[in-house]
Amino acid sequence: MRCRMDSAAASIEHQHVVFEDGLALECGVTLPHLVVAYRTYGRLNGQRSNAVLICHALTGDQYVAETHPVTGKPGWWDMVVGPDLPIDTDRYFVICANVLGGCMGSTGPRSPRNGIDGPPWGTDFPPITIRDMVHAQKLLIDHLGIERLFAVIGGSMGGMQALDWAAAYPDAVFAAVPIATAAYHSAQNIAFSEVGRQAIFADPDWQHGRYWETGKVPARGLAVARMAAHITYLSEHALTRKFGRRLRAKPSGGSGLSLFGDTFEVESYLQHQGSTFVRRFDANSYLTITRAMDFFDLAAEYGDLSQAFAGSHTRFCLVSFSSDWLFPTAESRAIAGALNRAAANVSFVEIPSDKGHDAFLLDEPDFHRTLAGFLAGCAERAGLQS
Amino acid sequence: MRCRMDSAAASIEHQHVVFEDGLALECGVTLPHLVVAYRTYGRLNGQRSNAVLICHALTGDQYVAETHPVTGKPGWWDMVVGPDLPIDTDRYFVICANVLGGCMGSTGPRSPRNGIDGPPWGTDFPPITIRDMVHAQKLLIDHLGIERLFAVIGGSMGGMQALDWAAAYPDAVFAAVPIATAAYHSAQNIAFSEVGRQAIFADPDWQHGRYWETGKVPARGLAVARMAAHITYLSEHALTRKFGRRLRAKPSGGSGLSLFGDTFEVESYLQHQGSTFVRRFDANSYLTITRAMDFFDLAAEYGDLSQAFAGSHTRFCLVSFSSDWLFPTAESRAIAGALNRAAANVSFVEIPSDKGHDAFLLDEPDFHRTLAGFLAGCAERAGLQS
Repeated sequence: MRCRMDSAAASIEHQHVVFEDGLALECGVTLPHLVVAYRTYGRLNGQRSNAVLICHALTGDQYVAETHPVTGKPGWWDMVVGPDLPIDTDRYFVICANVLGGCMGSTGPRSPRNGIDGPPWGTDFPPITIRDMVHAQKLLIDHLGIERLFAVIGGSMGGMQALDWAAAYPDAVFAAVPIATAAYHSAQNIAFSEVGRQAIFADPDWQHGRYWETGKVPARGLAVARMAAHITYLSEHALTRKFGRRLRAKPSGGSGLSLFGDTFEVESYLQHQGSTFVRRFDANSYLTITRAMDFFDLAAEYGDLSQAFAGSHTRFCLVSFSSDWLFPTAESRAIAGALNRAAANVSFVEIPSDKGHDAFLLDEPDFHRTLAGFLAGCAERAGLQS
Repeated sequence: MRCRMDSAAASIEHQHVVFEDGLALECGVTLPHLVVAYRTYGRLNGQRSNAVLICHALTGDQYVAETHPVTGKPGWWDMVVGPDLPIDTDRYFVICANVLGGCMGSTGPRSPRNGIDGPPWGTDFPPITIRDMVHAQKLLIDHLGIERLFAVIGGSMGGMQALDWAAAYPDAVFAAVPIATAAYHSAQNIAFSEVGRQAIFADPDWQHGRYWETGKVPARGLAVARMAAHITYLSEHALTRKFGRRLRAKPSGGSGLSLFGDTFEVESYLQHQGSTFVRRFDANSYLTITRAMDFFDLAAEYGDLSQAFAGSHTRFCLVSFSSDWLFPTAESRAIAGALNRAAANVSFVEIPSDKGHDAFLLDEPDFHRTLAGFLAGCAERAGLQS
């Protein structure tokens, strides 16, 4: 699976804003030049009070509710964001930015180091944190003239950002919806991240991150990383229901036993997940962003998780899914407990689902009703016109 | 991590027996020459009625209760097998064979194709099944002059073999102890297997399995496979207790953030697991044996799982561990249900443990007491002298 970087993907022009003053990162380095690529849906009202920031997950991007420019597929949350949908674009002004460190237009390892042209940062890109991502989004929100976000919403790593927004800018977040997430990355999650990184490092086409020099990208390593991660996004039940032990094709004649090839349907599915992923994602971005997730630990940063939300007036709605074993319900419950200790306004819903972590991206009517209902209640409190 | 195959490991002489008539495999191929490497502990009694066959797991081998000739470490079950231990070598004659397809002396992908010398089978080694492994062990048991095994015992893939022994040779198995296992490999387990195989395939040093030609082994790919698998052997709780989010070393100065290196202790641990594994294990064996596990599906073979044990007089003791998510308790319960439907003699114990799948290899006094007690009861029934 050696392949050249898709030049079409790398050369797409994304809507963006440039911050010439750059961004001071938590690691101590200052990025001299910051690009934030973003998309918006709906219209900002006259009071600038109806803005909803959506934070995407590890491998998501800003193309939330429209055809993706690289894959041609529908937006990753087009079931949730749109007219008359839970995040109603007739009512809210929806913003989603590609995260710092990403590969869909925002500054990241694929960006030119000097900010203009020249070779990419590659693995010289500084280590970043969830807080750094939030800081970059805050610059965008300021640029758009929005003082207070009506809501910050995100699943998985997007949920980490939603929590971090509420901790860093309590007065700028009226409501926060952290979904299928945790206040820190667990040892098991760090372990899965590390397997993915080691798979990328092991691919000789990675070339210590300088793969632009040959134009060969570490497609095999990145595909293995994606395959391993993808298992963790599904529940055992979902895998069994979708594939069970079904064989892909009975070989004509013979015993049906073979060492190679995608004998079982689940293998073929995983291989497909791996190979399509490498067409749209940058390996160095994957390394950088998984590291940012590993570093995330709000409780450690504030001494105690409740301290992260001390005095907060933000309205929180925590959502978990019963079969999510990557960010299990217990993690959301721990956040709810900390918010209660901080006397914050919090509701917490565990959605019964057998779809695993990925449930937040899928057709889960209970989840969608919860989200729509919570936002409608908050809109009333915030005095938003319906 | 490029390294040459450890010639010391490959050239070790293992105790073995040669079957010149070979072995007809389920795939239709006949291996013209079969070597079964094995170790024994204790003494066979005059009635030849005290033999216990131990079946090892995916990456185990026949060095159950003695120093391993490659790693120099204690035997993998030295807490369980020995004088006055649960499998008491003062009482039982313990046999363990390296599985067919393995790399510690039994015929496998590393063996010469012509049975004598010349190039190894490599990936031309035929696809094998758990039943093929059992057939090879049966030849060894016959060779040792044993008509009926007092017990067949194994964990994980060893448990699959124990189940398969009881199904294939009900009259030759007085008691069976399948531990932390299942009657089939689940979609999730196949998926994890496939990630490991793809990691090996992705390593250019694998060279389509012909790595003996250059002497370079696919160490990086095999290490990634082992790392991914190793996470599944532990519980989240065990990982958290052992490592949590502890940092390996605080870098002197700086923010402590870095993209590379084993920042967290759990990363360093996994990397160590990966790199030590490749010194003792053959990549093509890993491919062959994981495939054999994927093919395993006793119910499919017999139409219904209870049919696999119809009329059986074997005494079964099924053991699962509460925190094992690779072979969860539900899988053992399903086997117990099938054995009940077959009116077989079965006891089933779930051991409370937070150590995950690996618990069967670790210091779990409840498990050891269960095993010792079950064997003692069976010994009385079998009329074995204590």
